[in-house]
Amino acid sequence: MIQTPKKIAIIGSGLVGSLLAIYLRKLGHQITVYDRRPDIRNVEFSGRSINLAMSNRGWTALREVGIEDEVKKIAIPLDKRAIHVAGKPEYYQKYGKEGEAIWSISRGILNRRMIDLAEDAGVVFRFEEKVWDVNLPEGKIYTGATEKGKWKEYLYDIVFGCDGAFSRVRHKMQRRSRFNYVQEFIDVGYKELTIPANEDGTHKLDKHSFHIWPRGKFMFIAMPNMDGSLTCTLFLPFEGEVSFEKINTKAEAKHFFNTYFPDVTPVIEDLTTDFFNNPTSALVTIKCYPWTYWDKVALVGDSAHAIVPFYGQGMNAGFEDIYALNKIIAKYGDDWEQIFSTYQTERKPNADAIAELSYRNFVEMSSMTADPNFILQKKIEKRFAKKYPDKWIPAYSRVTFSNKPYVEALANGDAQEEIMKEIMQIPNINEIWDSEEVDQKILSLLSGKEKYEV
Amino acid sequence: MIQTPKKIAIIGSGLVGSLLAIYLRKLGHQITVYDRRPDIRNVEFSGRSINLAMSNRGWTALREVGIEDEVKKIAIPLDKRAIHVAGKPEYYQKYGKEGEAIWSISRGILNRRMIDLAEDAGVVFRFEEKVWDVNLPEGKIYTGATEKGKWKEYLYDIVFGCDGAFSRVRHKMQRRSRFNYVQEFIDVGYKELTIPANEDGTHKLDKHSFHIWPRGKFMFIAMPNMDGSLTCTLFLPFEGEVSFEKINTKAEAKHFFNTYFPDVTPVIEDLTTDFFNNPTSALVTIKCYPWTYWDKVALVGDSAHAIVPFYGQGMNAGFEDIYALNKIIAKYGDDWEQIFSTYQTERKPNADAIAELSYRNFVEMSSMTADPNFILQKKIEKRFAKKYPDKWIPAYSRVTFSNKPYVEALANGDAQEEIMKEIMQIPNINEIWDSEEVDQKILSLLSGKEKYEV
Repeated sequence: MIQTPKKIAIIGSGLVGSLLAIYLRKLGHQITVYDRRPDIRNVEFSGRSINLAMSNRGWTALREVGIEDEVKKIAIPLDKRAIHVAGKPEYYQKYGKEGEAIWSISRGILNRRMIDLAEDAGVVFRFEEKVWDVNLPEGKIYTGATEKGKWKEYLYDIVFGCDGAFSRVRHKMQRRSRFNYVQEFIDVGYKELTIPANEDGTHKLDKHSFHIWPRGKFMFIAMPNMDGSLTCTLFLPFEGEVSFEKINTKAEAKHFFNTYFPDVTPVIEDLTTDFFNNPTSALVTIKCYPWTYWDKVALVGDSAHAIVPFYGQGMNAGFEDIYALNKIIAKYGDDWEQIFSTYQTERKPNADAIAELSYRNFVEMSSMTADPNFILQKKIEKRFAKKYPDKWIPAYSRVTFSNKPYVEALANGDAQEEIMKEIMQIPNINEIWDSEEVDQKILSLLSGKEKYEV
Repeated sequence: MIQTPKKIAIIGSGLVGSLLAIYLRKLGHQITVYDRRPDIRNVEFSGRSINLAMSNRGWTALREVGIEDEVKKIAIPLDKRAIHVAGKPEYYQKYGKEGEAIWSISRGILNRRMIDLAEDAGVVFRFEEKVWDVNLPEGKIYTGATEKGKWKEYLYDIVFGCDGAFSRVRHKMQRRSRFNYVQEFIDVGYKELTIPANEDGTHKLDKHSFHIWPRGKFMFIAMPNMDGSLTCTLFLPFEGEVSFEKINTKAEAKHFFNTYFPDVTPVIEDLTTDFFNNPTSALVTIKCYPWTYWDKVALVGDSAHAIVPFYGQGMNAGFEDIYALNKIIAKYGDDWEQIFSTYQTERKPNADAIAELSYRNFVEMSSMTADPNFILQKKIEKRFAKKYPDKWIPAYSRVTFSNKPYVEALANGDAQEEIMKEIMQIPNINEIWDSEEVDQKILSLLSGKEKYEV
């Protein structure tokens, strides 16, 4: 279908905003991107973002507009987890099959590159221009230096809110009747820390691993950067026995790292300095509906569905929104009401599914060491999946190395959990876990799940 | 404990705001109530509110400050439901034991009376003064004619947000990190209609009944007013086969009433006129947490926990907040940080419980006629409760005629549901429903619920 060029405003020049700009520009639309912040290409990074893990869905969306190879140049493939259990040597866990990997990439570097690519495609960026209000039915936006000051009015055919978890555009939609909205913070916060490169520019830890120190109620992770450093994130409860509120001095921070992460002691000076320089941030899940207003306004990415980062899917889900939207545009041409209604109907259940999967994955990630039953269950699943790879695709693979809908990954994961619950109740499961008997039991339970699709 | 007088602002002069003002004024505080709307004593009613049902919790809160008798003068006791099933004569269902009733009262008339009583107690009201912003840590509020215009600043020791479901005070708290928030609309809307009085001033329907026309996915209710009229509410899905979107002409409205509510035909002219004059409104559940900010700001009533109206508990729950807060103040005196923290910890689970009960009750109310299994279950419960009144207190009675926490009513209701689920699975339950065998089965299931408290 042919598209009539529209005058489109995108609010937010983050990853989702700039990729959406590239897509829509390539369809011939006139695109202006507004951002309240300065051009990220001219500022030092704030250090507040978790390093990103680009996986299948993200790459698919980049490939569609021909920028996959360009972005791969600034990403490092990680084909395995390196698990640092206290008191044991680190051990490795392959993510998927041969050739399957997630890619570590710096949010800041990627964002700069994406804005360059958008500008090359003819997108106009207006940085440090704050959008305070949106007239939804008329497609007008209002910008100005302060909320109470004088505003400028701009008229657009379509306005996209790509302005993140605390979206102004959504905020305006939220004040309408019948707008459903949830924001739910978890009791765990995070702090970003850095492990610097060796003197020769190499990494202090294995470069092609996602490093994780699971500690039950908290965990520490590290992902490699191109410059030899590793970006680390400490996830820790705000309150409680071991928590952010209990670490208030350098001595307390040192004691904390020495106690729980003795293998990072060589770089403890850097970590404790970072600890007090960098902010402690909260983690939120945001859900809302509808995502669109008539044929005028739509939310894309975090503004529609912010999720906790434990599945590494925040950016991937946002990019997949754009990829899906593009397919829908191809189908419905100029009928933007139909485009928006199809878009939100198709994407909303998937956004809810990845929100749920991400929330659950914190428990999974941080328990990797703790519960012997959990470890046994994972061993059984792994053994079975290896033996019957067509019958048991782990949820992680479905989410990370496939483009099939998130809802399917969640449903299949639930079905697998139900089966494993029964398996774990076999009285002598500890002894017979790797027996033919257990395999047969799983196979028979699988055949009972009519709706289970592999 | 003795209270040091504080300078307190209450935002919102509705029922909760004015009752809280009376309570705090009686403790010796200096109280100013702000409201963006004009003084309700000088305006005609908008007709947008469901008539209220005052029950035990509401009366308890009014009694505490000595205004129960005063308010009873403008209320009508309803000791039963009058159920209008299509094609059958109306029949009656007693609410509770002898002397137990809910009280029909007009929101507008009650609100006027409460403001009078608050003024008599020395509360200052500032009507048509719009609060646009709140400085939470400093207890400052900002008012003005428009959001973008010039604002006045006022400093208070404590600020209470009693400004309803779409609270500005909460809105300000919501922008803080780690503030959890949910707003969820249901697919059913409502419209208020009126059945006028007879020429001699009497009611067209039984005066001491809560009238209900259950129709499965929708329902119509009527409550008597002092002047002989009845305030009716039509609850109907927004979209679907029988829905608001399908009724667009007077002829369609008449057809609707004639088809589903033939016994209201004598007043159908009034109903169809109202139908197009009065707005269709949405119904929302709002949950949030925390409810307080330090010792400075607290939310009370709908601003903290808006619920759907199907249990008639919105106002009662708000009044109970105040009653509970007053008890906590008596315990902790001047320690407002302790007062607020105790208040929100104690009230939050109860607010969640009544939200859940209210949501579920729409299904219960509108199915009263539909499902034969449901009717049989209710018959069994009723029979058992009559025979063993100490062992089976219906959830409705716990909510409506008791002051015990809502959480208990919910937990006990769930336990009863579980028991009845088993009872309804007895193969020949249709034949033996009123037998000793069923009684014994219920008794034995009850004894299995260790945590079940009667």
